[in-house]
Amino acid sequence: MQRVTLKEVAERAGVHPATASRALNAATRSLVNAQTAARVDKAARALGYTPNSIARSLKTSRSSTIGLLLPDLTNPLFPPIVRGVEDVLRAVGYSPWIINTDNEPDREAAAIESFRGRSVDGFVVATARLQDPLLEEVADSGTPLVLVNRRVASPDIPSVTGDDAAGVSTALRHLHDLGHRDIVHLAGPQDLSTGLARRQAFRQAMEDLGLPSGRDRIADAVAWSEPAGAEAMQSIIDRQIPFTAVLAGNDLIALGCYDVLQRHGLHCPKDVSVVGFNDMPFIDRVAPPLTSVRVPHYEIGAEAARLLLEVLEDPERHPRSVVLPLTLSVRGSTAPPPG
Amino acid sequence: MQRVTLKEVAERAGVHPATASRALNAATRSLVNAQTAARVDKAARALGYTPNSIARSLKTSRSSTIGLLLPDLTNPLFPPIVRGVEDVLRAVGYSPWIINTDNEPDREAAAIESFRGRSVDGFVVATARLQDPLLEEVADSGTPLVLVNRRVASPDIPSVTGDDAAGVSTALRHLHDLGHRDIVHLAGPQDLSTGLARRQAFRQAMEDLGLPSGRDRIADAVAWSEPAGAEAMQSIIDRQIPFTAVLAGNDLIALGCYDVLQRHGLHCPKDVSVVGFNDMPFIDRVAPPLTSVRVPHYEIGAEAARLLLEVLEDPERHPRSVVLPLTLSVRGSTAPPPG
Repeated sequence: MQRVTLKEVAERAGVHPATASRALNAATRSLVNAQTAARVDKAARALGYTPNSIARSLKTSRSSTIGLLLPDLTNPLFPPIVRGVEDVLRAVGYSPWIINTDNEPDREAAAIESFRGRSVDGFVVATARLQDPLLEEVADSGTPLVLVNRRVASPDIPSVTGDDAAGVSTALRHLHDLGHRDIVHLAGPQDLSTGLARRQAFRQAMEDLGLPSGRDRIADAVAWSEPAGAEAMQSIIDRQIPFTAVLAGNDLIALGCYDVLQRHGLHCPKDVSVVGFNDMPFIDRVAPPLTSVRVPHYEIGAEAARLLLEVLEDPERHPRSVVLPLTLSVRGSTAPPPG
Repeated sequence: MQRVTLKEVAERAGVHPATASRALNAATRSLVNAQTAARVDKAARALGYTPNSIARSLKTSRSSTIGLLLPDLTNPLFPPIVRGVEDVLRAVGYSPWIINTDNEPDREAAAIESFRGRSVDGFVVATARLQDPLLEEVADSGTPLVLVNRRVASPDIPSVTGDDAAGVSTALRHLHDLGHRDIVHLAGPQDLSTGLARRQAFRQAMEDLGLPSGRDRIADAVAWSEPAGAEAMQSIIDRQIPFTAVLAGNDLIALGCYDVLQRHGLHCPKDVSVVGFNDMPFIDRVAPPLTSVRVPHYEIGAEAARLLLEVLEDPERHPRSVVLPLTLSVRGSTAPPPG
């Protein structure tokens, strides 16, 4: 389309282009006489003028764009995070650019390169691994960066996460109150902060409750997926450890666990109780409805965007991280143990 | 961060900036002596130069960005569409910019304005209503535009959709084969092409099967949601029409229908069979697992991106639309009628 220029708007309004520019920019509009500003508005509307933010971004070296790195948007965890980020950023004129990386380091590096080539103002990153030299490098380069949902081992990159330790402790207390003593944990991937933190919290909370917390009661799933959850559950069963309850690292792992229990003729919750993590959409509809630790993903995304905006406003501000409380949604997958 | 300029790269490599630019651009690299190109690469790497695509986009008036308008990313329909669009675009160097509009016309207008201000090359739009003056205007302005999942009444805007009529016909034939004769339809919103097409297809397919297809057998849900589906189901029950099977406009409407059936002591599938539409993720996990018309959303998104790239390459090409075939996923929510 042929773009209408600011000069044409100024000519039609009978003002200097600089005046037209000031009138059309919210930050400087008050510097212009109100009647003049109204005349510029009218001229802009009549000509169908849209301010060219790319030209503006080049001038001010601000593109008002945030790069948002995700593992995979089709994992039901991430859409609410994206909405939270977008809703907060949009309200102040920023647009998020989204790239899915499928947790592949090469694609993450390419995504960051691409974002830099497009002069993004900052990054919100949901793909962090505990050891992540690429993100350390981004943080060192001075580009504002906020981690969302996951953290890196280094403490000085700002992040917004759920309080995994408290979530695990609440879930185990619920199982303990129902009478369970033999509890196992299907942990998530141990190179990710969420997988590691929940696994560490499991051992700690079990000890606090005076319950057996040996390594034989934990199986690590290789991914946050149903097949990986099924594999982990099978590995516990193969060990022939007595158990009446399972704490799964997340809801997808819990669904994989459901399948294996059923295959072995074990009924949930009559024979085995299962607790998931995330409380993802529609998990209240599965059979049986899954008891799950609710993680407020929308709020986590919104907080991450707010944290990033703070850093953009005041780059000298000391980095800080935000931890949000979690709650337990109790449903049909947990009941007293048999006998 | 302080950006390294092309001029600095050229100086370090000992070449003219124009030569450095040609060497770093894949499209023009073959015009440069191979040894010189390698020297430019080395200098660029040493200085940490990343090509500034915003500056480039301004020069060529191409930003290599596509605006993607969605109703709501947290509706499980849309993440696979977004992935399909992104995967195809990314492979050729385009980035999608995503805005969620929650189907609010004001936010759609603001989103299109914002995309234009950022000089996007084209639009992929999943928010189309049948009557949509805004999109007609975008199409008329000459900006490449492809509709995805939904169409407008005007036939000359390219779109990629599922074959709703064939999907409905397959679902009704399945119910007919099981022995159902009294079938009702919980239709989706009638100002959207998907809602209208499925409703029209219901009446046509019922007639073709020689079954009663009067308007009293159809209730329109006001939204694609569980509460709207529950309301529509309740309205059918209030009419006291005999029915043994329900075709829901989509899976969320079917879930709302589940709730109302249960409240009335009707068992699915023993008393009433239910068929959904979309075959959304995890719908095979609900109780009972939902029989649903599978819509290949990832492929729909990918096809839309391909169609848009074709238009970008050859703006004179005659507009065309793509319709993808649907299949039926048969599960536990459908069975022979009682008696």
